[in-house]
Parts: sequence; C-alpha cells; structure tokens
Amino acid sequence: MELLLGIDGGGTGCRAALADRTGRIIGRGRSGAANIMTDIDGARANILAATRQALADAGLDERATSSISAVLGLAGANVNNNGARLEKLLPFARATVKSDAAIALHGAIGEGDGTVVILGTGSVFITREKDRIRTIGGWGFKVSDLGGGARLGRDLLEEALLAYDGVHPSSPLAEKAMALFDNNPDQIVTFARDARPRDFGTYAPLIFEYADKGDGLALMLIERSVKTIEEALDAIMPPGQERLCLIGGLGPLYAPRLSPKYRSRLQLPMGDALSGAVRLAVGLFAHVEANHG
Amino acid sequence: MELLLGIDGGGTGCRAALADRTGRIIGRGRSGAANIMTDIDGARANILAATRQALADAGLDERATSSISAVLGLAGANVNNNGARLEKLLPFARATVKSDAAIALHGAIGEGDGTVVILGTGSVFITREKDRIRTIGGWGFKVSDLGGGARLGRDLLEEALLAYDGVHPSSPLAEKAMALFDNNPDQIVTFARDARPRDFGTYAPLIFEYADKGDGLALMLIERSVKTIEEALDAIMPPGQERLCLIGGLGPLYAPRLSPKYRSRLQLPMGDALSGAVRLAVGLFAHVEANHG
Repeated sequence: MELLLGIDGGGTGCRAALADRTGRIIGRGRSGAANIMTDIDGARANILAATRQALADAGLDERATSSISAVLGLAGANVNNNGARLEKLLPFARATVKSDAAIALHGAIGEGDGTVVILGTGSVFITREKDRIRTIGGWGFKVSDLGGGARLGRDLLEEALLAYDGVHPSSPLAEKAMALFDNNPDQIVTFARDARPRDFGTYAPLIFEYADKGDGLALMLIERSVKTIEEALDAIMPPGQERLCLIGGLGPLYAPRLSPKYRSRLQLPMGDALSGAVRLAVGLFAHVEANHG
Repeated sequence: MELLLGIDGGGTGCRAALADRTGRIIGRGRSGAANIMTDIDGARANILAATRQALADAGLDERATSSISAVLGLAGANVNNNGARLEKLLPFARATVKSDAAIALHGAIGEGDGTVVILGTGSVFITREKDRIRTIGGWGFKVSDLGGGARLGRDLLEEALLAYDGVHPSSPLAEKAMALFDNNPDQIVTFARDARPRDFGTYAPLIFEYADKGDGLALMLIERSVKTIEEALDAIMPPGQERLCLIGGLGPLYAPRLSPKYRSRLQLPMGDALSGAVRLAVGLFAHVEANHG
C-alpha cells in the first residue's frame, strides 16, 4: 500500500496527516516541537512520534513507516542546509523537506500564482509567481513582523502607558488595558520583562474588538498595522496577480480592514498548511507512482 | 568631622562621592550594581563598597562611616517602600534615599523649576514645579522609552530588514547596518534574539552620524524619535517654564534637533546625577548642622 504523509512542524508542535494516494486523510497525529534549527534530533523524534500516532489512527502497523512518501513543512528548512540534512535522517521511502511558508502557501492557494500572508503572532508574506516562491518579513518579533499579533499587543501596552502618563489621549481600550494590570504601570513593566511574543499577542484580539466599537486607539493601531501589511504587499505581490489569502489567527480579523485595492483580490484559503503538505505529497509522489503503475 | 556622601546607583553600577560640608568632593568610589528592586542586600553591599573606596580615596578610616550623612539616588526608590527599607539597613549617621530621577534633576538644574530628559539607553522625563517632582516615561525598552538609544537602534535594524526585503527604500545607513551583519538578515535575527536594550543602543550614535550627512532613513528615525520626545514634553513641561536640560549619552546629539519651541529653553546641565546627590546632601544635612552648630 502506497502511503502519503504531510508534516507541519515548528517551534511549538508538530502535526502529521496520513493519506492514501488520492490525498484522502486516513490518520492524524500530533507531538511536540520540531525545530530543525536548534534541535534536529529532537525534531526527528517528534516527527516520528506524530507519524506513529497517525499510523495507529489509521489502524496501520508501525512497520508501514518504510513505505511512506512524505512532504514536511518546517521552519528553517532553507537555513544552513537543515532540510537536506533531515531528509537523510528519516526512515521513510521518500521525504522532501519544504519551508513552513511553502506548505502554508500550497495549503491556502494550491497550484498557480498567488500571495499568502500569515498573520499570527508574527507576520510573513509569501508569493508564488510562475513557480517561483518568494518570502519577505517573518524575521521575528524583535526586529520585524510589524503586522503580527505580538507587535499589536505590545503596541497596545505602550499606548496604555502613554495614556497613563498623559502623553497621548486615553480611550476605552487604553483604560481596559490598564485595568487588566490593576491600573498599575509597574505590573505592565513586570509582564513585559518576561513576556514571549505569543504573550504579547494575547492582547491583539482585544484591539480588533474595540476597533469594531469605534475606539480611536484601536483604530489607530490597526490602521498603522494595515499600512505595514499593505506596504509589504506592494513590495511582494505582482500588480496583476489576482489571488490573495490572509491566514493565521488574525487573518479573518484583518481581512475586512484592508483597502479596496487588496480586499478585492481576497479569497478564503482552500486549506491549512498541513493540508498543503499532503497535497504537495500527492503532486510529488502519487503522480510518479501513476507513471510507473 | 562632618562628612557628606552622594551615591548614584542603578542596575549597572554604583558611584560614590564623599564631600566636606561645603560640598567640595574629597574622595570617590565605584562598585557593582545597586538594584534595590531585585537585590536589596547586594545593593547595600555595593553601596558600602563604593563608600569604603571613597573614604580610602580621601585618606580616611573606615570607622568614619558612622559620621556620614548620605543622599542616595537609586532606581526603584519609590517602588514597594524599597527606599525606606534601605535607609534602615545603612550604617550612616543619616541617610535619605531618593529616586535616580530626583538626583539627576538636581544635578542638572539644581534648585527651582525646570525639566530634565534623560536620553540614554532609555528615556525618562522629570520636571520640578514648585517643589513637586513628577516623572513620566522610563517604563523600559519593551513597552516605553520611545526616545532612548535602545529603541533607535532596534528601529534601525527593523528598517534595514525592511529595505533588504524591498518594502522600504534603502539608504546608505540601511546598507551600512546590513553590512555590519555581513548583509545576512539571519545574523540580525540572531543578534536581536539575545540583545539587551543597551546592545540595541550601541547602534544609536550611527543614526545621528548619518543624519548629519543627510541620510533619509537616519533623518526619518530621528524625526520620529524627536516627535515622541516633544509629545512627552508637551505633557510634562509647564508652558511658562524656562529651563530644559537633555542629559544622558544622547542628550547632546538630540539637542540641536529639537524644534525651536524647546530648543530656545535648552540649557547645559550644571552637573551629573552624582553631583546632584552631593548637592542634595549639602542642602539637607549641612544646613541642619549649621542651624545646630
């Protein structure tokens, strides 16, 4: 039996989907971090753990591992030859490691030209034009990712403090943010000292909620953020290109706030990154089998 | 013999200046961090180490410690009663703990009304109006300190990556910043991951250097930063107040770039924060002695 496997792995976890040669999902698995930049052996172990779960979920024996053809989408695949190194360490019949961006793009738009923006804790822009994939942004919270939730949440706390100090006018959102920290700026300082990007990001949905009520600060923060997103789209999306997808947790929140130029090209994503990995596996491997069968 | 002591302490070190009752400095000392927010016992030990050095520098015996009247300026003095707690732990005849802002203000402008902006790694605004001292900003790099060197340096790296990605136009400064990281964005990401605020701050002087040459990016970054400084001054400095001092490493670099409204009120600082602590000690303690002697 020919088995196809899609893997979507990153710093927070690893998901596996096992499929037949038509791409129909027959089993799923999940495990811990698969960070090939910092821990390639740990990544391999978690990829195999998620794969074992997916095999069990499909009612298959672990020995089927050697007949799997896999596409793995992993952050850092293009850095330092990490992807090629991992391919050699895997016990599958065939394995191709792609970037996390490549499977997200394929999941959202499938074949053909189009642009995808991942708007989660961070922000990454991916475009495919005549089979060439290009990525910008995504350099991390500290010095990039201007449209991400971490940046939005951090900006909210900064504005809450500026309102507290009387430097900027206050607003219901600024007051709400201060109230979440007992109206004590020291509590914001303490939170910020140890906060990870995703911790800042927890405050992003609140901004969209208040923007819907017309809060001035919320609208300013989102307008500023949308401007950074559209500047990046101006740089990466070819003028004639028709398809644009916003994915990630904040994608649906940003979508109605884009300017008409980009809103008119928006379409809903076909599927998630994991489904993109599976469909890439169908395209890469089931096709070859068909030729040979 | 009546001895006066000024202490300027914070997270990076502690300086001591010993003076006679006229305020003439007779000995100086220096030691490690005096952070009363995180380690009050360590702070006490370093304050006493710097004091011993100052006594030795003045040719005095350590036993003179008990005849010292001290003013200490320490970050976090107003938080959680830290200042009052430390006062009770010190072996001096008299000790008054003030905030770091209070001694910086007194060092720069002495008695009377005036406003001081500390522009170092962070940014803090302090004003004295009819004996009332008020501070804004200074909540730290993560969520505040928009005029500080850390923020400027971080902003430069962000703009270097935006230029690298083709989102913003490049400039000689953006190219210079990329060149400092071997034109490899991954090196900026790695640097940013572990950089402390002061590490980001090391890039701030470069921005002023390129601004002097008319670099567009440098001018934009400084203009944005000056705007945040003047917004805070609008909030804290009373309209009729005449005296404004910019202190800290970036103070002299920002001074010529303020708008005329504030540039016209600028004056050079009288002295540094440590001299402010000594002069406060003269005012507080030598005066009392004079009354009693």
